[in-house]
Amino acid sequence: MRIAVVAPSCTLKPQAAERVRAIIEERGDCELVIHPQCFLSEGHFAGPDQARLDALHEVMADPSIDAVWFARGGYGSNRIAEAALADLPDAARGKTYMGYSDAGFLLAGLHKAGVDVAWGPMPQDVLRSDGEAAVMRALDWLVRRDASALEPALERPAMAFNLTVLSNLLGTSLEPDFTRADLLIEDVSEQLYRIDRTMFHVSASENVRRVRRLRLGRVSDVLENEPPFALDEAGIVEEWCARSGVPYGGRADIGHDAANRVVPFGSENR
Amino acid sequence: MRIAVVAPSCTLKPQAAERVRAIIEERGDCELVIHPQCFLSEGHFAGPDQARLDALHEVMADPSIDAVWFARGGYGSNRIAEAALADLPDAARGKTYMGYSDAGFLLAGLHKAGVDVAWGPMPQDVLRSDGEAAVMRALDWLVRRDASALEPALERPAMAFNLTVLSNLLGTSLEPDFTRADLLIEDVSEQLYRIDRTMFHVSASENVRRVRRLRLGRVSDVLENEPPFALDEAGIVEEWCARSGVPYGGRADIGHDAANRVVPFGSENR
Repeated sequence: MRIAVVAPSCTLKPQAAERVRAIIEERGDCELVIHPQCFLSEGHFAGPDQARLDALHEVMADPSIDAVWFARGGYGSNRIAEAALADLPDAARGKTYMGYSDAGFLLAGLHKAGVDVAWGPMPQDVLRSDGEAAVMRALDWLVRRDASALEPALERPAMAFNLTVLSNLLGTSLEPDFTRADLLIEDVSEQLYRIDRTMFHVSASENVRRVRRLRLGRVSDVLENEPPFALDEAGIVEEWCARSGVPYGGRADIGHDAANRVVPFGSENR
Repeated sequence: MRIAVVAPSCTLKPQAAERVRAIIEERGDCELVIHPQCFLSEGHFAGPDQARLDALHEVMADPSIDAVWFARGGYGSNRIAEAALADLPDAARGKTYMGYSDAGFLLAGLHKAGVDVAWGPMPQDVLRSDGEAAVMRALDWLVRRDASALEPALERPAMAFNLTVLSNLLGTSLEPDFTRADLLIEDVSEQLYRIDRTMFHVSASENVRRVRRLRLGRVSDVLENEPPFALDEAGIVEEWCARSGVPYGGRADIGHDAANRVVPFGSENR
């Protein structure tokens, strides 16, 4: 199993790369190829759009690569996602793609194109407290399809997104078909009024209204709301589900933290 | 001319109400009716959804009211906009509605329903530095249709929105038809990566792509982007216009400040 790491959003920290390399060596069940593009930096991003796109294209087209692991989130994968998907090489289809947060733009578009993708921890997560467990979980899924890595109440088909990323991909060419899928959402570093506004937007979508149910992961590092918002995140999501006729499926074990679980998109166990 | 003030979003500050009342008395050319709902407070909002909706319904249905002036922005008008529009009383149609920022949810839905709306300063703006000029400008438009209050390069038909509000109303029942209109946008208190992400979302809309041109107002109180974003707000908007085929029409004289000008929606000078 050869796993390529590319950074379609922000720059991977070298110390994260080192620690993940050490974990892989210790495991001995897979090979890691960290693309040098991961360490580029231009403004907000891990290099210019073209460099990030080229690296992604390169590993997608490489038949010796079995999985593409997005280095980290941040922001920027949406800037290259349409181009990456426009001309999908045959070799791109036999792989699994894993990431979360901003990588959701790519997960959405790749899933829509019929490629296997999974929400799950990324290399940069190794720097979190207990981050090694997150990286091991991601690798357990990528290498062995270990079911213990999965979100525990997962019912297929399912998809998982950062709520703000989901809101920003609705109506774009990346928007997948949510019909009869479980939709898992989470968010980080937002005020609760923004969570409420984004739920208004997302739950108005006719596509989203066709989900089997919506489940809420963790909403962490909530920024101060002045004055305090009346509802908490579960109250907000339950209200918009009720208003829009979307069945609310309770909490889910995903989030911007080391406990984040794997959610393979689609129906089949691959 | 009787102008009613209601607060579909956040609570109006009493000192703002006092100062606007004093301005109106000094002008002597109109009558101001500040609805007591403006001073309610529940969590984030100027009272519960039902109270904000009832107040809005009441002034919309009152044939003695000539204009409805939204007290301030913040967040929350989207929570009552659909209900406010569901059952539009006849008397609602003869009035002008003015506001900006979060009030854009209502402006969008009312304009879509064929009612006269205008982007423009609100009562709470009187508390800004030079805020009296902003309030005078709004009243000059509401009372006298004074053309000097208008955005100076305005070409009809036009619409103006806070960019983040616009992003969150796309795909909802409030989304108006942008075909062949000038679309003016502005934003406040966002990081530049968010402006970029929101422009990705907005410029992907087929409806937005039918605008005659997109003009950029002020993007103020920009929050720190770590690391610094490569482009400034004009560079970001120009890039997404180029990518999406939307003609970029340059800068516009609107924003979250006392210099904010009036943009009546639609084609006619009323």
